[in-house]
Amino acid sequence: MSATATKTQNQHSAVEDALRRRFAERSSAAEEYGEQFALLWRLAADHVLGGKLIRPRLLLDVHGALSPAESPRQNDVAIEIAANVELLHYAFLLHDDVIDGDLTRRHRPNLIGTLAGFHTETASAEDVVLHWARSGAILMGDLLLSSAILGFARAKVAESTRRRLLDLLEHAIVETVAGEHTDVGLSDGVITPDLTTILSMTAYKTATYSFALPLRAAAILAETDPSVEMSMVTIGRHLGLAYQLQDDHLSMFGDQADHGKDPYADLRAGKETAIIAFARETGAWSRIEHGFGHPQLPPGDAARIREHLIECGAEAFTRGLIEDQLAAAHSVLENAAGRAEIPGPAREAIRRVAASIKDRRR
Amino acid sequence: MSATATKTQNQHSAVEDALRRRFAERSSAAEEYGEQFALLWRLAADHVLGGKLIRPRLLLDVHGALSPAESPRQNDVAIEIAANVELLHYAFLLHDDVIDGDLTRRHRPNLIGTLAGFHTETASAEDVVLHWARSGAILMGDLLLSSAILGFARAKVAESTRRRLLDLLEHAIVETVAGEHTDVGLSDGVITPDLTTILSMTAYKTATYSFALPLRAAAILAETDPSVEMSMVTIGRHLGLAYQLQDDHLSMFGDQADHGKDPYADLRAGKETAIIAFARETGAWSRIEHGFGHPQLPPGDAARIREHLIECGAEAFTRGLIEDQLAAAHSVLENAAGRAEIPGPAREAIRRVAASIKDRRR
Repeated sequence: MSATATKTQNQHSAVEDALRRRFAERSSAAEEYGEQFALLWRLAADHVLGGKLIRPRLLLDVHGALSPAESPRQNDVAIEIAANVELLHYAFLLHDDVIDGDLTRRHRPNLIGTLAGFHTETASAEDVVLHWARSGAILMGDLLLSSAILGFARAKVAESTRRRLLDLLEHAIVETVAGEHTDVGLSDGVITPDLTTILSMTAYKTATYSFALPLRAAAILAETDPSVEMSMVTIGRHLGLAYQLQDDHLSMFGDQADHGKDPYADLRAGKETAIIAFARETGAWSRIEHGFGHPQLPPGDAARIREHLIECGAEAFTRGLIEDQLAAAHSVLENAAGRAEIPGPAREAIRRVAASIKDRRR
Repeated sequence: MSATATKTQNQHSAVEDALRRRFAERSSAAEEYGEQFALLWRLAADHVLGGKLIRPRLLLDVHGALSPAESPRQNDVAIEIAANVELLHYAFLLHDDVIDGDLTRRHRPNLIGTLAGFHTETASAEDVVLHWARSGAILMGDLLLSSAILGFARAKVAESTRRRLLDLLEHAIVETVAGEHTDVGLSDGVITPDLTTILSMTAYKTATYSFALPLRAAAILAETDPSVEMSMVTIGRHLGLAYQLQDDHLSMFGDQADHGKDPYADLRAGKETAIIAFARETGAWSRIEHGFGHPQLPPGDAARIREHLIECGAEAFTRGLIEDQLAAAHSVLENAAGRAEIPGPAREAIRRVAASIKDRRR
């Protein structure tokens, strides 16, 4: 392994260690409040530590590339901030799962499903068990959201850096919640599902906190020029939008052998995506509409609807959007290179992320 | 009006102004994310500004009494922190209302009820309207919880003071959520409703953030000796417990002409209180049990159960608990006076709060 790869690997383990430490402290403090509360913390720790840590890795990779000569103290701060970004992510997931009524995530029980599983063998009615499990997820979401913000607030950085980090964090939280609120409005029929609304919802709900937040935090911690920070926000938004569009595209058109998910889940759930927004504006919609959002849509009908989505151009349109977003990210990188703004290693780190989004199969 | 009363009055208006400013900024920033998100902020502002601001007033009254010679800058910081305590309180209320399924609070539609009211005349099914309204309350709770913590993090105080405020805030959040989690466990039958559990749940869920947090924050901001801070925590816990026990006592045994609530609501909801925990341990429980938690309990049966609760001693027991808690708070105050720890005006301010709890009729 090269020295850089070893350092990267060490940093990723360091994020896991930071998360493990945070949960160990909290679980231990939770004992005082009874065994159910302590159990809730332990289960949340298992779920967070089982994650892929995409956001902390992005932050640390780019931060390391932006400031290769950082002190161990600066490195420790970056690891702490990266761990807080992951806690924020998981807090959002918990409240999303409550709102969407989901009991699984990536084929496994989520925290709600796990909590409900502890009580399915008791005599309690199913609705009481689900109430207990969902309330636990609301409350753990509050705890982790708080812990993430307090982690940012306690970062051992200069006062001016801390203020910039807090402003960035607040902006990310407000924008993510605004995106989620619009998403709920779309699925509840309160907000009209046009393409512009769906694309901005996607950027707000996913791109901001998953890509722009880690990239901009890396720039702030590396004390770069403000122009680099602004480039990071733009790059983050393009990458994040590409990532989510790719996610929706794979769910609908990907190979089940690769992604392993129910290939018709989004159709049956009536998920408002760019694919659907495009199709709505075509003549094919009358052949799609009747099955969209029907929980019991038979596989044969679903497969035909998927064919209609390809024929009407929605598949190619969305693939084009993904390419556009990735191209836009590359273009910002090249302009920044021309102005000698973002150093070579950081550009390389970001290009690797773009490539991994492009090549995603699951 | 005396000079002190005028100053107090000005400070209370200043908290309202601080809250109004925060919401004006946020509502204006929310416009960018669509009209539904902006509407959510405006409705939340109406609900927060319609509150009695008990917690900020307590903080400011005691802070003013602890540091009468404070600078305008210190005063501004105290007002900001007081406003953040109110935002925290409202964030907790929102998530409580989601968990409890409540659509009203103190006879008026709460935020969920208000949001649902906007859509009752549309063709949407009732469950979709409620989903939209509850999701809005979860998300606004997240936004206000974040705003409150960020407000503490941005307080213009010395670094050491800021750290003490953040530690205090984190402790209050964890303890409140632990109390709420236990409360849900009690109502869902996951946790056994014994008296010890109910009293500690009450202290955690209500006393910590409503009384100990404002009192201790006042002490930290007034830069008192650490012993004063510790006394404030103890006093806060006693007053908060007395407050909540009084609340439960009034709901069950108070005069409907005074409090204006359904006098049998707690019985019908099966609310696990100290009153019920005491009654469970008496021979009267067999005559109470059948009606407890029955949503359609007829008024005649409910009135008889209330008589049983008086006869078995549960009413007198709870009244005694309230007196004990208030006496304990006074005793801490007197000890502190003996050691010249808490200055006279601050002791007076706290005694006024204790008297208002004792004399509550609604």
